[in-house]
Amino acid sequence: MPDGYVHGYDKRESDRLNDQAGTLVDLLHSDTAYPPYSRVLEAGCGVGAQTVTLAHRSPGARIVSIDLSAESAAQARAKVAAAGLANVEFAQADIFDLPFDPGSFDHVFVCFVLEHLPRPLAALVALMAVLGPGGTITVIEGDHGSAYFHPDSAAAQKAIQCQVELQRRAGGNSNIGRSLFPLLREAGFAEVRVSPRMVYVDSSRPALVDGFTRKTFTAMIEGIRGQALKAGLLPREIFDQGITDLKKTAEMDGTFCYTFFKAFGVRT
Amino acid sequence: MPDGYVHGYDKRESDRLNDQAGTLVDLLHSDTAYPPYSRVLEAGCGVGAQTVTLAHRSPGARIVSIDLSAESAAQARAKVAAAGLANVEFAQADIFDLPFDPGSFDHVFVCFVLEHLPRPLAALVALMAVLGPGGTITVIEGDHGSAYFHPDSAAAQKAIQCQVELQRRAGGNSNIGRSLFPLLREAGFAEVRVSPRMVYVDSSRPALVDGFTRKTFTAMIEGIRGQALKAGLLPREIFDQGITDLKKTAEMDGTFCYTFFKAFGVRT
Repeated sequence: MPDGYVHGYDKRESDRLNDQAGTLVDLLHSDTAYPPYSRVLEAGCGVGAQTVTLAHRSPGARIVSIDLSAESAAQARAKVAAAGLANVEFAQADIFDLPFDPGSFDHVFVCFVLEHLPRPLAALVALMAVLGPGGTITVIEGDHGSAYFHPDSAAAQKAIQCQVELQRRAGGNSNIGRSLFPLLREAGFAEVRVSPRMVYVDSSRPALVDGFTRKTFTAMIEGIRGQALKAGLLPREIFDQGITDLKKTAEMDGTFCYTFFKAFGVRT
Repeated sequence: MPDGYVHGYDKRESDRLNDQAGTLVDLLHSDTAYPPYSRVLEAGCGVGAQTVTLAHRSPGARIVSIDLSAESAAQARAKVAAAGLANVEFAQADIFDLPFDPGSFDHVFVCFVLEHLPRPLAALVALMAVLGPGGTITVIEGDHGSAYFHPDSAAAQKAIQCQVELQRRAGGNSNIGRSLFPLLREAGFAEVRVSPRMVYVDSSRPALVDGFTRKTFTAMIEGIRGQALKAGLLPREIFDQGITDLKKTAEMDGTFCYTFFKAFGVRT
């Protein structure tokens, strides 16, 4: 295959994936923008997957992004710098031992973090302490119990349950999305509002078929194959059948459903 | 309790339920309105639960509503008359043996019907035959596999599965919502589009807590208790625990999720 074709393909592929990213980014982030000079804490930035979007949508805000891993925070810093954004500071820090004075922030933003924590409620309480009165928290999480599809498949559901079980053994909760409302309330936030962000995919939406069903969800389940088999959670042939069946949901007559939850609360 | 209070309460209760009905009606029907003089077939009108909304939203359309049961069709007729609507004719008729010439209608509307049919694809093909070229079909169905909630409960999920199994034994499919896209395509409709209509309920939405979680979904599952126990689908104590747990999802810190699917297609 000549170089030119390969590059051409890569260019198209890259454009398409960027389009796709745009779709999911809009679904999750389009209603989050912080005013100029507001002080925003992104807690658990990881390698910066959401930080670029956050910084881009709130260009005048003063964002501090932290992660427990110094290495992840460094990668996030590089990613934000590469995007030409200058409104984010990075630090290694623990949500349960925050190096900030009480009331240091106007807003807290948490995305795909609580699902990993053994004590999500305590995390919310800790984050509330660095918010000033009237400060807001925004939390986005998925919920693997919201995944269903056509053709339905018991093997695929079992493979997904392996991810849920591994997450549980690691102290997390892959089904946390549905619980955000009581969690924020119990942490003491007021005016708690939760809105579901459902991703519905069929072949009339090819960017989502590829970008979400195949390359996000199915790839994630495929990615825990080694761990799941090693832990003896499922016979190899059932797990592999599950992956085969998940891939069928991305074919012409397949459908796939998944829901993210976005929660909002106010410190009184 | 004095009569006055009871009546006052009933009035408030009635108002609130009407508000609630409005919410679900909007979610499902707000984007369906047929133009004046267009010929609309409502297939499977039952006792007219949707017919009043349909007729109200398309006051100039000429609607024909049919049901396999003459008794149901008569009840629907009475309900529409009581609502002061005069743009609907009713008839007893079988979707698989329609008493209409080919191309008799501009639009077909089907709501909560395919889930009951052993041959939903054949029904769609039969309905297409009475549409003229360019005519449209609109289909609304639920999907019980889309029900999840907090607190989660294995007993509640098992009770729900009793409904799914009873429906299956009766020849239907309670999880049909996710399959509307391939069904309409396979029937030969063009420009098929499906949009999910997710109902998310927490205690900040009290009308939905009462109107949907309690009085629609939980009441429906409670309603099949006798059949489920008689069929031996679940031990009595598990079923009853499931109902108790479903009711907990309607308490202060509960959440409940369910998704309807609305599909649209065109006869070419």
